[in-house]
Amino acid sequence: MEEEEEEEEVKESIENLWQEVRDLSLGTTPHIDHLPTPPTPLHFLRHYITPNKPCLISSAATRHWPALSLWPSATYLRSTLSTTPVSLHLTPTGKADSLTPHPTSPSSLCFASAHVQTLPFGEALDMVLNSREGETVAYLQQQNDCFRGEYGALKGDVEEHISWASEALGCLPEAVNLWVGNHFSETSFHKDHYENIYVVISGEKRFLLLPPTDVHRMYIRDYPAANYQYHQDSGEFTLELEDPIRYVPWCSVDPCPSPKVKQREIDKFPLYFNGPKPFEVTVKAGEMLYLPSMWFHHVTQSPDETGLTIAINYWYDMPFDIKYAYFQFLQSIPYPPSKDPMLRKARNVESNSDGYTSNSGEESDITAFEENQEVRNGKDRKDN
Amino acid sequence: MEEEEEEEEVKESIENLWQEVRDLSLGTTPHIDHLPTPPTPLHFLRHYITPNKPCLISSAATRHWPALSLWPSATYLRSTLSTTPVSLHLTPTGKADSLTPHPTSPSSLCFASAHVQTLPFGEALDMVLNSREGETVAYLQQQNDCFRGEYGALKGDVEEHISWASEALGCLPEAVNLWVGNHFSETSFHKDHYENIYVVISGEKRFLLLPPTDVHRMYIRDYPAANYQYHQDSGEFTLELEDPIRYVPWCSVDPCPSPKVKQREIDKFPLYFNGPKPFEVTVKAGEMLYLPSMWFHHVTQSPDETGLTIAINYWYDMPFDIKYAYFQFLQSIPYPPSKDPMLRKARNVESNSDGYTSNSGEESDITAFEENQEVRNGKDRKDN
Repeated sequence: MEEEEEEEEVKESIENLWQEVRDLSLGTTPHIDHLPTPPTPLHFLRHYITPNKPCLISSAATRHWPALSLWPSATYLRSTLSTTPVSLHLTPTGKADSLTPHPTSPSSLCFASAHVQTLPFGEALDMVLNSREGETVAYLQQQNDCFRGEYGALKGDVEEHISWASEALGCLPEAVNLWVGNHFSETSFHKDHYENIYVVISGEKRFLLLPPTDVHRMYIRDYPAANYQYHQDSGEFTLELEDPIRYVPWCSVDPCPSPKVKQREIDKFPLYFNGPKPFEVTVKAGEMLYLPSMWFHHVTQSPDETGLTIAINYWYDMPFDIKYAYFQFLQSIPYPPSKDPMLRKARNVESNSDGYTSNSGEESDITAFEENQEVRNGKDRKDN
Repeated sequence: MEEEEEEEEVKESIENLWQEVRDLSLGTTPHIDHLPTPPTPLHFLRHYITPNKPCLISSAATRHWPALSLWPSATYLRSTLSTTPVSLHLTPTGKADSLTPHPTSPSSLCFASAHVQTLPFGEALDMVLNSREGETVAYLQQQNDCFRGEYGALKGDVEEHISWASEALGCLPEAVNLWVGNHFSETSFHKDHYENIYVVISGEKRFLLLPPTDVHRMYIRDYPAANYQYHQDSGEFTLELEDPIRYVPWCSVDPCPSPKVKQREIDKFPLYFNGPKPFEVTVKAGEMLYLPSMWFHHVTQSPDETGLTIAINYWYDMPFDIKYAYFQFLQSIPYPPSKDPMLRKARNVESNSDGYTSNSGEESDITAFEENQEVRNGKDRKDN
């Protein structure tokens, strides 16, 4: 009885937190702030970075970027990048770094990463344009600072950094990444340990956003890692578990389940489906989203008339300060009550002896870069 | 058994938080950052306000303030303020707004406020200079924007606001308060819902500081409110409970217990005495302390050769954002486990239906101004 009371108290405290952060700071509608012009560094720091609050900045911010007129023409990209080798992500469904039925025990799930292939840009772009769901979906992306690496020839078409963000944060971007895809590609709910400025160049991206306070609503669990292998001869995929087995903590919630499984999903993840609605924003060509560090985000996209969705994002080091310490604390509190050993395990993954590195040695490709940076940042901080 | 496990987990999570915020951001020594010159607004916002981290700014910041040379001469203050009526706080011990033996049941404690008397400045200053511990200790202070009210004649001697702080926070001070006392006066551990710039003009102030993450180490409990009454004819005090009874949640820890009671205090408040040491800083004449919102602070002081400690502080509205929501959540988690109904009560005081006002209707004089402001701010925020 007393135990139940304690549990009830913790449940209430956590649910109050979801509401309070909205009442105080984020707002109680699914909308985020829209800024007509880029903010000053001070305004951006005070109203968005400090409170860890997203905002959308209108296309006035990118009016002078050559990319906006040049990139939507595939001709320009083809001639500029020509046969430059680039990283192409291949999946049968468009869902990479996401949960998918386990290859040998289909009643459970695994964490599936794309097959990554290096190809000359022209060929790779053809594969993106020829993507077919259920067969092969290709996505040009690599979250390892690829824009300043593979796509260096496009450097002059965008700003090297977002000046007001760099000034506010006191640093230059750690990574700049390019994304060229289409409506088949979808990014499942996850968070990054970066402050993120996300700029759409062509087409639209739709983000669902949940603040870090809502971590329990994501049902982060450990899933075995698997990789798609693409067999060029047959044009088919196999999904292979990593050996030795490696577990990846990942959000369990699919926010847009098909009607057939919807009720089952609601029953499995009631904290997500019955709690406050996620924030929603559609980022159009020329617009920028400030996606604050540690926010959970789910991304879908639609292409422009050429069939492509193109975006570039700037990752800045996040401040590891009292907010991060509070987040780690929140995540360590068992809710729903910790009878589930899987949950218990997942909960503890992010806290290690260093206190600020996450999932060392058991993280997915998507965050390998991020993770290295984080460890490095942690070291820098210690040296100060 | 399972309940104990759960409790053990929560205990570990809370203690990890104390350490983590120090490892990541605040530092693991009792020292705070010292800045040789005033920071730029951007630097101050990025490195101190955003991470909720204190810093000391050297006397270079106030070199041009006339107050530094004028005020230590009581002659100047006497001639400028002359017979201006001012608020004088009188206690027998120098400890106002602090815990003291209950007047009718001395084995328990109550929360005692000073006798406040309005007197012509000259007479009031004489009483401060003639203070005697155990008899009458007088302290010129009133936390209701008194500097811009009662002490308006001194306005030209200091900056009206701290320009880099105002620019960083995007507002002017809500209140500016003057403090004229001596070494008898001591301020017990408490927190304010303000960003605070504290400037010492004469003498020294020594602060012990604990971050808001350490809230459980303060053993905040509800104490019955009492007021000192000073009887001018006899020169004696009585301590009278408020009728009807009113409870004030207050920190139970005295960080500097006398040797006689020290072991008893350590046994009563082990989380304070056995946990990480508080941050310590001595603020000298001309120096400024940035005391971040929600930090617990305990203050002692020593006078200059004229026998006075003089200080002025600028209270700025604090941002009620994700940090505040996290703090409220942390405070609502029962630790030590909530078998103690007093603690359970105290824990719940700060959360009311508004989510951001604290202790409405059951707060001490010391924060009455603050509270009104807070409610007002909350309203403003809602109207935005």
